[in-house]
Amino acid sequence: LYLVKVRVTFSAAHRLCVAGLSNEENHAIYGRCANPSGHGHNYDLEVAVRGQVDPVTGMVVNFYELNELVRVHILDKVDHKNLNDDVDFLKVLVPTAENLAGKFWEILAPRIRNGTLHSITISESSDNEVTYLGPDQAP
Amino acid sequence: LYLVKVRVTFSAAHRLCVAGLSNEENHAIYGRCANPSGHGHNYDLEVAVRGQVDPVTGMVVNFYELNELVRVHILDKVDHKNLNDDVDFLKVLVPTAENLAGKFWEILAPRIRNGTLHSITISESSDNEVTYLGPDQAP
Amino acid sequence: LYLVKVRVTFSAAHRLCVAGLSNEENHAIYGRCANPSGHGHNYDLEVAVRGQVDPVTGMVVNFYELNELVRVHILDKVDHKNLNDDVDFLKVLVPTAENLAGKFWEILAPRIRNGTLHSITISESSDNEVTYLGPDQAP
Amino acid sequence: LYLVKVRVTFSAAHRLCVAGLSNEENHAIYGRCANPSGHGHNYDLEVAVRGQVDPVTGMVVNFYELNELVRVHILDKVDHKNLNDDVDFLKVLVPTAENLAGKFWEILAPRIRNGTLHSITISESSDNEVTYLGPDQAP
Amino acid sequence: LYLVKVRVTFSAAHRLCVAGLSNEENHAIYGRCANPSGHGHNYDLEVAVRGQVDPVTGMVVNFYELNELVRVHILDKVDHKNLNDDVDFLKVLVPTAENLAGKFWEILAPRIRNGTLHSITISESSDNEVTYLGPDQAP
Amino acid sequence: LYLVKVRVTFSAAHRLCVAGLSNEENHAIYGRCANPSGHGHNYDLEVAVRGQVDPVTGMVVNFYELNELVRVHILDKVDHKNLNDDVDFLKVLVPTAENLAGKFWEILAPRIRNGTLHSITISESSDNEVTYLGPDQAP
Repeated sequence: LYLVKVRVTFSAAHRLCVAGLSNEENHAIYGRCANPSGHGHNYDLEVAVRGQVDPVTGMVVNFYELNELVRVHILDKVDHKNLNDDVDFLKVLVPTAENLAGKFWEILAPRIRNGTLHSITISESSDNEVTYLGPDQAP
Repeated sequence: LYLVKVRVTFSAAHRLCVAGLSNEENHAIYGRCANPSGHGHNYDLEVAVRGQVDPVTGMVVNFYELNELVRVHILDKVDHKNLNDDVDFLKVLVPTAENLAGKFWEILAPRIRNGTLHSITISESSDNEVTYLGPDQAP
Repeated sequence: LYLVKVRVTFSAAHRLCVAGLSNEENHAIYGRCANPSGHGHNYDLEVAVRGQVDPVTGMVVNFYELNELVRVHILDKVDHKNLNDDVDFLKVLVPTAENLAGKFWEILAPRIRNGTLHSITISESSDNEVTYLGPDQAP
Repeated sequence: LYLVKVRVTFSAAHRLCVAGLSNEENHAIYGRCANPSGHGHNYDLEVAVRGQVDPVTGMVVNFYELNELVRVHILDKVDHKNLNDDVDFLKVLVPTAENLAGKFWEILAPRIRNGTLHSITISESSDNEVTYLGPDQAP
Repeated sequence: LYLVKVRVTFSAAHRLCVAGLSNEENHAIYGRCANPSGHGHNYDLEVAVRGQVDPVTGMVVNFYELNELVRVHILDKVDHKNLNDDVDFLKVLVPTAENLAGKFWEILAPRIRNGTLHSITISESSDNEVTYLGPDQAP
Repeated sequence: LYLVKVRVTFSAAHRLCVAGLSNEENHAIYGRCANPSGHGHNYDLEVAVRGQVDPVTGMVVNFYELNELVRVHILDKVDHKNLNDDVDFLKVLVPTAENLAGKFWEILAPRIRNGTLHSITISESSDNEVTYLGPDQAP
């Protein structure tokens, strides 16, 4: 079994807050990430696809093809944007790394043609990272 | 001559725009960095001090002392903040990397006690970086 | 299933040697890592927790909460220390990366409240890394 | 269960092309990687072995021993070489990251004495990576 | 004085050899970099421009503008190419990092409109780097 | 003018303390770096040489030749060692990054045959770095 991974980076602003809670309540949940006027990150995004190698081409999926899929459906929507205000598919969610990963999975999984989506990994900084392995993995 | 450098990172939102210009005019100057609701970065900040080594301690300046100076006067003001809205000393400036570096120099230069401030380096991503060498360097 | 990972670094000295063996015997097992007066590393430590996302907060576990747990129970005990001499919970062990990972697991596993400890990863340098997946994983 | 990983890097030229296809056909499959006179990379290679810890030495496998195995059987054959022309065990294959990983597995798996080969990971750049988990993993 | 730096990466093959010398003679000069069928690298290229900040825009030169200049005049010519065979402006030179830096300077210096070209830095790997400061710097 | 830089890494233990001072006095100067049983780091060392390019070879100095000089005269003496106890040329010094840089300069400067030693840069971690520009640079 092979895993093929592509990595991209995007720069975005976000604010972590549950709608309807006060600034104090949100600060109790999210700490400094609840700053009312927001903050931002260079996000690293890794998309992993699993599959078998085509014996002629020696590839599971072409890096460029996979990269292009991520660019069109994810990167162009979130790069140099405010994740709370500018991104249609994120508007009803708190833009945590977990929720970004879950939403990116929903968007990319049905669009992968060679191989199967294996994981979505997002880091907000070198200090933390979230990997989503999909809805079918048992806890 | 020795250069002693400390490095910290901070996460912030910003928007590049000249007050009084339209969105279109700002987009013409700053491209996607002019997105009206902002975007963000993990900024890397390096502060370099030059000087001679104390023959007893073997140091120009203690790393912790220099790091603490940067934390109190810079990091606590900009980390997890919106650079356009939340930072008093940036309010009249477009928050470009150049202007951040210039302002951080003004704040730190008079506070360095061991050695002399040599440079302020800021990168918004691994793709770009600005170094300010101070007002006394001839062009 | 989600994995949430936090990463910290610590600087420590260690010496690899089995008590009761000669310097020559330890050198035969550990090579230059058996240097009698020790050597040291900047260790990278990653702690991964698996779980489901809380639908209100959008998090498995707060990064700060997990980071604080690692700081109090691990980092404050090993950072800027000699792993052979200064750390109570390591004293009967050869301080290999494997043994550090196993011991950190014992300390952290019962203290994780949101989610379940998934893995402990330690690297002594960019050239090597150990991941411990816990005692329940079949070989 | 423990995973022990060693990482090395090698610099090599390669060209992606299926023998017997025209330049245009190969370009359609591999894009700019089909450039007829080749291009090159600094490849990162990670070899992971899984096993249990020896209670006396505190190791699954010595890092130096594993590193030496990779150096002799892989690195000395591919570093500063042209992967299409200079490497006997690659000559009948398109030198994609997938095929390199598969071939390195065949060479290393029978030579691991402490523990079991777990995965071979190869990246051609920071933007992409392939992990091979061996022939026994079900898709 | 400000330095503004942009960084790009390119993947290329090269062979170090003086035309007219034997393989043995070239090996004596360049070691394994003289391998007759070539090898390759992911090259990191940093272009630094010095200048003063425009008081309205807060920039010396726009990152995108500088990046575009590097892309059109350098990157599109060398990325995924063989530096010995495919690049017109390198054909009479041994493609060492020094010679690449010197040639890139010649191409870029007259095209910088905001500020002045300050340095060209090229690394073939994380282990080595060359910086060219231009023809006017005294030794 | 060209700068040619080689980079190596070494793993060592050290303790910062002025001989004759108490643990408390040393702690007041060096903080946690004065831990009596020591700590350690993966040190990054960069050696930069300046010079002109040989028009035949296209090099200032061969990377391998410079790397070998650093390996024989520095790396073999400090890697996997205790800097306070095991290194003859460091014994009378507090092993700060400044003092390491100064001592490495004394050792390497007279041994550089192609070009002139330009700087010695040492970092103990990604958070700090010292560059020594030699005794001739005016403050």
